[in-house]
Amino acid sequence: MKRAVVLLSGGIDSSTTAAIAKHEGYEVYALSFDYNQRHRVELEAAEKVALSLKVKKHLVIKFDLRAIGGSALTSEMEVPKDRMQDTGYKIQDKKSRASCIVHHASSISSAIPVTYVPARNTIFLSFALAWAEALKAEDLFIGANAVDYSGYPDCRPEYINAFEKMANLATKAGVEGKSHIKIHTPLINLTKGEIIKKGILLGVDYSLTSSCYSPDKDGNPCGLCDSCQFRLKGFKEAGIKDPLNY
Amino acid sequence: MKRAVVLLSGGIDSSTTAAIAKHEGYEVYALSFDYNQRHRVELEAAEKVALSLKVKKHLVIKFDLRAIGGSALTSEMEVPKDRMQDTGYKIQDKKSRASCIVHHASSISSAIPVTYVPARNTIFLSFALAWAEALKAEDLFIGANAVDYSGYPDCRPEYINAFEKMANLATKAGVEGKSHIKIHTPLINLTKGEIIKKGILLGVDYSLTSSCYSPDKDGNPCGLCDSCQFRLKGFKEAGIKDPLNY
Repeated sequence: MKRAVVLLSGGIDSSTTAAIAKHEGYEVYALSFDYNQRHRVELEAAEKVALSLKVKKHLVIKFDLRAIGGSALTSEMEVPKDRMQDTGYKIQDKKSRASCIVHHASSISSAIPVTYVPARNTIFLSFALAWAEALKAEDLFIGANAVDYSGYPDCRPEYINAFEKMANLATKAGVEGKSHIKIHTPLINLTKGEIIKKGILLGVDYSLTSSCYSPDKDGNPCGLCDSCQFRLKGFKEAGIKDPLNY
Repeated sequence: MKRAVVLLSGGIDSSTTAAIAKHEGYEVYALSFDYNQRHRVELEAAEKVALSLKVKKHLVIKFDLRAIGGSALTSEMEVPKDRMQDTGYKIQDKKSRASCIVHHASSISSAIPVTYVPARNTIFLSFALAWAEALKAEDLFIGANAVDYSGYPDCRPEYINAFEKMANLATKAGVEGKSHIKIHTPLINLTKGEIIKKGILLGVDYSLTSSCYSPDKDGNPCGLCDSCQFRLKGFKEAGIKDPLNY
């Protein structure tokens, strides 16, 4: 059975990605990070999802990104709320995907929200690469998405491709030209609604997941941050009720 | 004053690299890692070197690579000793550099020692990239060396180049095509002796540094691990006495 390292934050995208990896026949090694994020409640979700998917192993690596800062998720900066109403920040729907991508390309800098965490996916994928090499696995899965996303630079296909090229030079096997590291991004071109429909087909229990950037002290989602709004839009699009309590 | 993030392990290469960055006029942000390495004493050396070079800030990021394993430096695996005597593992001297590189290319897999830590430089550089983005710095320095080194895949120029390409797509500025991340490797083509001579000229105090993979409980170097032997060879080549007590 081929092994795969799957990045699992406990949200919709990563949980669906883990289910896809399992469905494709991989033995799943799920990797989560406690980076002192504001929404550490997502780690409990990741654990529940890992259990429900019966992954082979679930590893949580801990480090403190607050020491680096630069993001509303790792500092006292405010998490923006209810931005879907703003004219400058519209979630694209499937029909207008092309035009929105053009819009992103021309004015994304102002569109990248303060919830962007510097080099987060690069750090996450680096640990995934380390674990893959130690496990003799060649397959890494990440739930990066370039449609219903916040415009984060490290979710774009060109970034993922560049990471894969680097990864194939970074390992022992890479020195011999025998490295075949593959970064799988099964959700890259799906809308949030399509992702949820796929997950439901694969039996993902979305009541276990957590998406909110700014949950209350009991871990309940705010319903207003970008991540909650993308999630709610996705369930609406899929025609399914979000099982979480807002 | 331009800012640079410099990876600082506390050994000869990274200490010399930090001195070079300073000499080139950068404001130095030194970055070290407590990854539960066997030779954590190097962190005390890193702190002393950072102080002596009067860096702007010294940050230590902590995480546990023993959970991932795959290396003698992060497991109970034995650190090899006195290997310079082996026929299969000779340190190349400057004159035979070319032939040794050919040798490496054809048989490096068996030559990569068990002290190689999976994806270590990728993880280190990823954190450096995150800090650089938060600091609005574009210059990263790493003391990677492809001459008197252990054959680690993530010390090779082609790896460094691939990381740089990826890094320029990973950040906010990368989305706008305005990213100018540069990975500086000022030691990449120097022998250990040349590195030491350069450091001496720049005033590096090598008595503060630590290179040993397997120090005794008082932090004294063993003199026999690969890292000690590369170091001792370097001082011999430079015609300078190593100030450490073996």
